[in-house]
Amino acid sequence: MMAAPGDIEDLIGLMARLPGLGPRSARRAVLHLLKKRGPLMAPLAQAMAHVALSARDCVTCGNIGTDDQCPICADPARANGEICVVADVSDLWAMERGGAFRGRYHVLGGTLSALDGLGPEELRIPRLVARVSEEGTREVILALAATVDGQTTAHYIADALAGSGAQISTLAQGVPVGGELDYLDDGTIGAALRARRQV
Amino acid sequence: MMAAPGDIEDLIGLMARLPGLGPRSARRAVLHLLKKRGPLMAPLAQAMAHVALSARDCVTCGNIGTDDQCPICADPARANGEICVVADVSDLWAMERGGAFRGRYHVLGGTLSALDGLGPEELRIPRLVARVSEEGTREVILALAATVDGQTTAHYIADALAGSGAQISTLAQGVPVGGELDYLDDGTIGAALRARRQV
Repeated sequence: MMAAPGDIEDLIGLMARLPGLGPRSARRAVLHLLKKRGPLMAPLAQAMAHVALSARDCVTCGNIGTDDQCPICADPARANGEICVVADVSDLWAMERGGAFRGRYHVLGGTLSALDGLGPEELRIPRLVARVSEEGTREVILALAATVDGQTTAHYIADALAGSGAQISTLAQGVPVGGELDYLDDGTIGAALRARRQV
Repeated sequence: MMAAPGDIEDLIGLMARLPGLGPRSARRAVLHLLKKRGPLMAPLAQAMAHVALSARDCVTCGNIGTDDQCPICADPARANGEICVVADVSDLWAMERGGAFRGRYHVLGGTLSALDGLGPEELRIPRLVARVSEEGTREVILALAATVDGQTTAHYIADALAGSGAQISTLAQGVPVGGELDYLDDGTIGAALRARRQV
């Protein structure tokens, strides 16, 4: 038999589909919400409904915002001739948290993957090539994961942009800030050694 | 600087207040919702708003339902003279999932705790005493945790109901079904030994 009324069980079922929550933790989260109906559940439902209605993919870069153009594409101060290519919106958010990059982005929406049926068309790569020539981009920075799929995608984009006149670069590989050598994998230590700088 | 537009950051902040989600996993959950705005985010927001508006504490037992009386208190078939006392709605749900109990519940909303300022009044204990005499309850089953606070609460309730004529019982302690002795704590093994039954 059902433990909670149907409406509440439905809510638990939907919550359980979030990443990081299973059936048990969704039940616990909903119970917490039920105990804080006024201060938390009502505002959360309202914020979620509002974002569900207003959020849209930026027509230029693929970032998620609440207008046709995301705040970064709409900001003229960020038209500095640099485009940073990322696989996912979460990578864009991570770059923005760092605050080191002052140009614009291009969100691929994944990396090339024959297994998942993700080809260049699905990844907005033709759109990137068009942008680079339209916007007269000086430099394209490939901020893709150091995985096989990520590096395959980086090579493909570098080839596609070969005749564009834009400089292509990738993020440096090396020891993370605060990272201890003892805990680093051999691949990272090797990459950091090959890319060593004179002090 | 902010990574996502303000509305989305607000939503992440609210999601991060759920148990089991921190700032990072809330960000990941919201990103997942943003990618599934139609199939998941909109229905979840609607279900949450609906439950936030319709959920209420049962006036009789403290269970959470969508009417003044919860489905269990409203079901005449469950008026069998037994009341099972639980600390929390989650315990009631766990009992109902088992499906072994066919009586009604009384949800305390916690256990006696001087530290948290939870006294008998906060825990609906006077309401329980009144119910037992009003409903002519035959048996009160104390399904409270085998912790110091849980057992203190059980003793307090047993004292408060001493003159009511109702029989007071507690859940049996022993080896869990499917439990291997090797993995059980000494306290449980001791309790199971003391409560051994002849076969």
